[in-house]
Amino acid sequence: MSTSKLGMAFKKDDNFGEWYSEVVVNSEIIEYHDISGCYILRPWAMEIWELLKEFFDAEIKKLKLKSYYFPLLVTENVVQKKKDHFEGFAPEVAWVTKTGKSELEAPFAIRPTSEAVMYPYFARWIRSHRDLPLRCNQWCSVVRWGCSNPIPLIRSSEFLLQEGHTVFATKEEADEEVLHILELYRRIYEEFLAVPVSKGWKSEMEKFAGGLYTTSVEAFIPNTGLGIQGATSNCLGQNFAKIFEIFFEDEKDPAQKNNEKDKRSLVWQNSWAYTTRSIGVMVMTHGDDKGLVLPPRVAPIQVIIIPDLLEDTDTTAINGACETIVCTLNQAGIRADLDARENYYLEWKYSHWEMKGVPLRIEIDLKDLANKQVRVVRRDKGAKVDIRSTDLVEHVKVLLAEIQDILFETAKEKRDACIEVISTWDEFTAALNDKKLILAPWCDEEEVEKDVRARTEGADLGSAKTLCTPFDQPDLMEGTVCFACGKPAKTWSFWGRSY
Amino acid sequence: MSTSKLGMAFKKDDNFGEWYSEVVVNSEIIEYHDISGCYILRPWAMEIWELLKEFFDAEIKKLKLKSYYFPLLVTENVVQKKKDHFEGFAPEVAWVTKTGKSELEAPFAIRPTSEAVMYPYFARWIRSHRDLPLRCNQWCSVVRWGCSNPIPLIRSSEFLLQEGHTVFATKEEADEEVLHILELYRRIYEEFLAVPVSKGWKSEMEKFAGGLYTTSVEAFIPNTGLGIQGATSNCLGQNFAKIFEIFFEDEKDPAQKNNEKDKRSLVWQNSWAYTTRSIGVMVMTHGDDKGLVLPPRVAPIQVIIIPDLLEDTDTTAINGACETIVCTLNQAGIRADLDARENYYLEWKYSHWEMKGVPLRIEIDLKDLANKQVRVVRRDKGAKVDIRSTDLVEHVKVLLAEIQDILFETAKEKRDACIEVISTWDEFTAALNDKKLILAPWCDEEEVEKDVRARTEGADLGSAKTLCTPFDQPDLMEGTVCFACGKPAKTWSFWGRSY
Repeated sequence: MSTSKLGMAFKKDDNFGEWYSEVVVNSEIIEYHDISGCYILRPWAMEIWELLKEFFDAEIKKLKLKSYYFPLLVTENVVQKKKDHFEGFAPEVAWVTKTGKSELEAPFAIRPTSEAVMYPYFARWIRSHRDLPLRCNQWCSVVRWGCSNPIPLIRSSEFLLQEGHTVFATKEEADEEVLHILELYRRIYEEFLAVPVSKGWKSEMEKFAGGLYTTSVEAFIPNTGLGIQGATSNCLGQNFAKIFEIFFEDEKDPAQKNNEKDKRSLVWQNSWAYTTRSIGVMVMTHGDDKGLVLPPRVAPIQVIIIPDLLEDTDTTAINGACETIVCTLNQAGIRADLDARENYYLEWKYSHWEMKGVPLRIEIDLKDLANKQVRVVRRDKGAKVDIRSTDLVEHVKVLLAEIQDILFETAKEKRDACIEVISTWDEFTAALNDKKLILAPWCDEEEVEKDVRARTEGADLGSAKTLCTPFDQPDLMEGTVCFACGKPAKTWSFWGRSY
Repeated sequence: MSTSKLGMAFKKDDNFGEWYSEVVVNSEIIEYHDISGCYILRPWAMEIWELLKEFFDAEIKKLKLKSYYFPLLVTENVVQKKKDHFEGFAPEVAWVTKTGKSELEAPFAIRPTSEAVMYPYFARWIRSHRDLPLRCNQWCSVVRWGCSNPIPLIRSSEFLLQEGHTVFATKEEADEEVLHILELYRRIYEEFLAVPVSKGWKSEMEKFAGGLYTTSVEAFIPNTGLGIQGATSNCLGQNFAKIFEIFFEDEKDPAQKNNEKDKRSLVWQNSWAYTTRSIGVMVMTHGDDKGLVLPPRVAPIQVIIIPDLLEDTDTTAINGACETIVCTLNQAGIRADLDARENYYLEWKYSHWEMKGVPLRIEIDLKDLANKQVRVVRRDKGAKVDIRSTDLVEHVKVLLAEIQDILFETAKEKRDACIEVISTWDEFTAALNDKKLILAPWCDEEEVEKDVRARTEGADLGSAKTLCTPFDQPDLMEGTVCFACGKPAKTWSFWGRSY
């Protein structure tokens, strides 16, 4: 089972697609499944997912989010009624039409997301302002079928996610939460996965169907020149409240007190989610020709200890020393493990744990034991250093923190090097061909984005579109015009092709 | 949202079915969903589920279980191939036949359990004895459709569960794990949910389809006279290994070394699961006419603190005292919360938290504050006692432990009072009509169980069947005969109708 292949057949810079498919399998992150677009998440992925969940759950509990589990299936009835919202998802919905040998009278949809599953019940539960805010989160899987070109973790038919759905009496509360959650998503990517992201607003075309506005964190994969949406935090405004008839009696508003009808106000809603895609983005960002490279904060094993046993050695002393090290590191809060398996060669073990991306490897042989030292090898740079056993915990902590920082800084430099600021259509198409992350002055009009898409549609590649309008806006000089239509520009926006 | 209804319309002893449907909704455990047999698990259920999960996850990590997530869907192909196994589940399988507007070439089944999803990959991952044991656990939901008479948590079309799937080189290892896991299930029921269960073997008719043998923990609901399977721990033997062709090269066996063909051995497998049904059994066991009664170890809130504010009181002092108490209890590891909402009457709050089954209520008024005491009210007995504030933590700990014990002891007495030891067919049918948990001497033959089922089939009620053959066997006197067929008895077994 754990016999990962030694070495990689493909190189990241030569054939990125094949390299990625190989690294996620060889590092035992996923296994391909016989249904195209479905993947088995192996312990190496699940443990990363659980580390992220631990952080996120603790943070949203501070925000008084509560755990729910809503059914996997939703009636066609609800789907039809909420057509506007479902339209975006319609081509992707998997339908259950039969149970046992019986045809169902009306089919059920497997949730592509849970708005339509949850909101009819929100309408039932919310009566007065005392019932607000309602804050709901669930960890589950959703199914969105039919990507013609699936990529493990990145574009899959089923994936794991958290989905938060919250209801407020006022827009101010909703607005504030949208940004609070977006900051948590930034931290997941930047502080845990060491992947640089841009916070920003989605365009009208790209926002969540039926919502008021969408914010997102956007990552970028230099090798492919493709942007990738990391997570979204949506303010739904009162749009879904209208569709699902979610009202509350707002006793606080004296102007409405005398009018029975007007006493009811529509609620304000948010929804936000991040998925196992985040793990895929991390793999793409840091992996190298030896396999996975894990940022220490999400590495299920941060330090692997490998005894170097010669055939004629008394193994007891070395194994004992290794066990002591594991214990000491664990007690210091470091996730360390020992590979004392006797039936694998040393070189195989080194390659195996490099393939799996473990940040630090500790080697010990008889000489080290005599010198009261160990050899520490970094996964990211391959650098080796001998460290006195007594200083080990302190050194390991420093090294792990340093690796975490350097992975982020390196990824950020690479990403930043791809950013190209343009101002004309010719510069735009040139940058697009160069696989750049394009920052362009834009009029922020839907028709113009449609037009850009139409004009850039490639054979194999998708068309160019807005990735986001970053919160962090460069100055927009008086008289700057839209790169695509020549009208006055209103924003700087990121454009490119994307996953 | 949180406006639970005050009081219960139905009484547990008068109309158990209606009482149960009411209590799970009013206590905000579940909400009915518009698809029959599907239910929304609300925070009060999810937090209990998470408390159980925390215990169980820590225990199975000691056993080196690893987290996996396998896809929700399985191809018809696999289902057809593994017909024998799937036959038992076939009537319950939900089929996806369409995605978007396209018919699928071959339909997908939503997993009713994951043997057929996982084992083809086990066959791929396992090569040599070095890959064993393989220990896999996943937390997910499964879908088993078509119960005509669904009951929230107890018999539902979709439910949450953990499913463990393990693979060993030897039967001894598999046997040992089956019992280890069963003991964890007993602890979940008895030590956490305070529900008495019997450990035992399932009969040939009742065992897991395709497995070698099934062990289970069995509970009993005195009000309905129905047994209920709490959880199962199955040894699959080598049966699934044959179907899914899961072999390993057993280098340890020198006798086989010279024969290339014989070097491969079939693995031994287990599978085991417990589900959200456990929460339903707990509700049925302890609930009363005021609502839910929660055993302290699984109560999301163990102590609710309610300030008794008179209209003309200075509320600051009392609220301050309440907050201090919450803090003190939380620091002592007790899950305490404050209900300081101003827009609810005191009596409503009392009823609300009684309905939700919180084990202890602490009331404080001005007089208590002056006397440096608080009033503590027990949910299980309604007993009230004034306790000096300085002694509070110690007292609360003792009370919570006492309530946990008493709930279990009371439930056990009630269950034991239902056990009827019988020896003849007439005694059997009389006991069955009396809703007893029947302990009967049995020949342990499949044909005889079939016969008993046929002879006891009622109009509305299901037929009688074996619940389990308890590990804890009374002496079987020489010459004891089977209650149903008169042949020599081989075991004492529990019989009855069941959920």
